[in-house]
Amino acid sequence: MRGRRVAFQGERGAFTEEAALAYFGDSVELVPMRTLREAFSAVEGGGADYAVIPIENTLAGSVGEAYDLLLEHELRVYGEVILRVEHHLLSVEGATLEGIREVWSHPQAIDQCRRFLESLGANVVPMWNTAAAAKRLAEVRDARVAVIASRRAAEIYGLRILASNVEDDSNNYTRFFVLSKESRPPTGDDLTSIIFSTRHEPGALYRCLEPFAERRINLTKIESRPVRSRPWEYNFYVDIVGHVRDPVVSEALDALSRRATFVRVLGSYPRWRPRDAGRGQGGAGQGG
Amino acid sequence: MRGRRVAFQGERGAFTEEAALAYFGDSVELVPMRTLREAFSAVEGGGADYAVIPIENTLAGSVGEAYDLLLEHELRVYGEVILRVEHHLLSVEGATLEGIREVWSHPQAIDQCRRFLESLGANVVPMWNTAAAAKRLAEVRDARVAVIASRRAAEIYGLRILASNVEDDSNNYTRFFVLSKESRPPTGDDLTSIIFSTRHEPGALYRCLEPFAERRINLTKIESRPVRSRPWEYNFYVDIVGHVRDPVVSEALDALSRRATFVRVLGSYPRWRPRDAGRGQGGAGQGG
Repeated sequence: MRGRRVAFQGERGAFTEEAALAYFGDSVELVPMRTLREAFSAVEGGGADYAVIPIENTLAGSVGEAYDLLLEHELRVYGEVILRVEHHLLSVEGATLEGIREVWSHPQAIDQCRRFLESLGANVVPMWNTAAAAKRLAEVRDARVAVIASRRAAEIYGLRILASNVEDDSNNYTRFFVLSKESRPPTGDDLTSIIFSTRHEPGALYRCLEPFAERRINLTKIESRPVRSRPWEYNFYVDIVGHVRDPVVSEALDALSRRATFVRVLGSYPRWRPRDAGRGQGGAGQGG
Repeated sequence: MRGRRVAFQGERGAFTEEAALAYFGDSVELVPMRTLREAFSAVEGGGADYAVIPIENTLAGSVGEAYDLLLEHELRVYGEVILRVEHHLLSVEGATLEGIREVWSHPQAIDQCRRFLESLGANVVPMWNTAAAAKRLAEVRDARVAVIASRRAAEIYGLRILASNVEDDSNNYTRFFVLSKESRPPTGDDLTSIIFSTRHEPGALYRCLEPFAERRINLTKIESRPVRSRPWEYNFYVDIVGHVRDPVVSEALDALSRRATFVRVLGSYPRWRPRDAGRGQGGAGQGG
């Protein structure tokens, strides 16, 4: 793993950096990228070996832009990471909960901590993102100010946690994709992400799911989205259990390709196992 | 329509207010609500007759929280509105594009106007939302500052449009639901939104779609989401073409209810027809 470069979308201390750490451990070089597109380009252009990008969140839904970029680029989904979004109230040494007059964070993080913030009664100020708020507080070192950000942001910017898990809803998970130019060999517990299109006619989706149902292949996700340039077609984002090299999966994909107007396999990758967190997800470290 | 109260999530000048205006015209009383939950409660408690809430966006995906609230509450989906998200650069009288040194807006709006902002070269400052940025600029009246917000925000806060449609991607649509306690009678061009659950086993979704495919009922949306409290079950959000009072639709829903572990019809409502914009979508004005 040493020497590998991992691009992530966001800045130092962002949740996506936590996801990259959870997946690869801390022996890789993590490279922050401002946009999703820049993260894709970094891997495509060889500036990074992997990219970690958010793909869906239980409260906010799928990241449509990420799926669009997957269609535009030739990268493979090499792995997944699922993390619970945990928000903490951070401040500088010497600060107390009672002394906090102002809280800085991203509007979405603030929204997700409404109940805590109402009980705190401090003024809230919007920032670009949770990490930027932490970074700025570390610079100004004002004990009357706290930020809502991740545990990782506290570590990076030398802040302490005044109150942990201040989010209203603990059912807030984000799923990330790890992208690479390489394909991943089967591990025995894999998922495969595909995108396919159908004409917009009754039963079209039903017929496209038949090859999977017949072979008792389980789906773990399905989502429709209108195709940008073709108003009467739909793209479906589907995750299935199994690897493209499993004969039953490759047969089902063959059958699908005869029924759909378009099929693209984004990649096969090991299902996320939280117990592996921080240990580099096995194969990833050995170069896949 | 006069005397009707319509709650919307957001503040004056927010996109959701534009959606409410596009649906109901300007003869209703529009009532801003800070959160989605407050918009639901306003209708449930009788403080408003309708609520308008965002349900999905082409770039950002479905609003998971809105679907959760639909399951928690007994409100009906009474209508839909689909609007293209258009961002404009607004400033005060006398301001010029060349003189702008700072741009205020919500981080997501800023993200969606990256290319324009890079060419402008001004400093960008995050705000709670686009309408709040417009409101504050109207107060301070600084011609070196512009905001990115909606046309409606320009009207409400007396700002002028310095540059229109500054968004990078014109394929940015938001779909809104209009909620009510009442059901909507058939119009001949209706959609029906349902949520159903299945056990997580191969072919479960396929079997649940069969009743629709057999009856040639078209789907316009499908999305899976894990059920909060039951780890091995999935909820599916599905929109079908037709009204629950159409015999073929009600037969299909009966058949579905024998295959799914849970079915809930959120409502049947006329498909959005942009030409009706501002004319109250027919039936809505006559009390449904």
